[in-house]
Amino acid sequence: MRVLGVDPGSNATGFGLIERKRGEVRHLRHGVIRPPVGLGLADRLHFLHAELLDILQAEEPEVAVVERVFLASNPRSALVLGQARGALLASLGMAGIRVSELSARQVKKAVTGSGAADKKQVQQMVMRLLSLATAPASDAADALALALTYAQAGPLAALQIRGRRRNSRRAMTQFILGRTR
Amino acid sequence: MRVLGVDPGSNATGFGLIERKRGEVRHLRHGVIRPPVGLGLADRLHFLHAELLDILQAEEPEVAVVERVFLASNPRSALVLGQARGALLASLGMAGIRVSELSARQVKKAVTGSGAADKKQVQQMVMRLLSLATAPASDAADALALALTYAQAGPLAALQIRGRRRNSRRAMTQFILGRTR
Repeated sequence: MRVLGVDPGSNATGFGLIERKRGEVRHLRHGVIRPPVGLGLADRLHFLHAELLDILQAEEPEVAVVERVFLASNPRSALVLGQARGALLASLGMAGIRVSELSARQVKKAVTGSGAADKKQVQQMVMRLLSLATAPASDAADALALALTYAQAGPLAALQIRGRRRNSRRAMTQFILGRTR
Repeated sequence: MRVLGVDPGSNATGFGLIERKRGEVRHLRHGVIRPPVGLGLADRLHFLHAELLDILQAEEPEVAVVERVFLASNPRSALVLGQARGALLASLGMAGIRVSELSARQVKKAVTGSGAADKKQVQQMVMRLLSLATAPASDAADALALALTYAQAGPLAALQIRGRRRNSRRAMTQFILGRTR
């Protein structure tokens, strides 16, 4: 299973692709999509959309994992982040890829052991977990951390999120049965 | 010149297409794009992106006009609006169409004479100005109002916006010269 993490941002969108095979996780590729300086808004958003689509077509991940936004700091930054997310999610929709959302806290906790870890700790742990020679740029490290978290605890984490809204006991039981079968 | 107004919304995105020829403005088409209920977020955003792209390819407008967002009411609604805008603006970028932004106040003032007009007044005036048999749905009326405002005062309005940031005297002079030539 190929899992693509995406960390949306209007100036820098991180992505990180990993593969899980028989319980082993392997790093495939990561990077940061940066729209050229000087482009107008529509062209910047199209750039994000098109670059991500290129990656999706080349790598064919089964699932994409995006950070869940709980509460943006202010309306202006929420609008700017929303626009980048909108262009990128439309690209995932176009490619027909399943999209999962995980909270930053879940990801930090899964990767570093602490939900309050800082960016540097995430970078260091991602580097170690994936046996990389150097630490990835922060945006790419966040994307790889999203993918790692999903690959390790994806179904369970998704159930926990759903569980807040509706009764997930049946789904949870099925998950556990599936795991111990 | 064909001008397409777009009023972004995650549940309902209005669009309105008009044509200006020798100073006369003619209505061509309007409608509301509504993603089917039950789609996931990425599929909804892709739906907006793809439907707008269809319209752009069929109608080939020279310019698209989108409402400028000054201050969204709260971070949550700003994020949701931003996502819809992001998908739609990426579509405009993909089609290579020039994008202009006008404030709601500018549009209301241009169409009704009052920057504080309500939705119903905009609907009524759009219907009258374009000689429509019935009032368009509110989202479509807003989109037509954007297109009308641009078609009537587009270059001037754009200069006024730019003028806030940099000296537009030269551009303004050229505009006036072009008009009186």
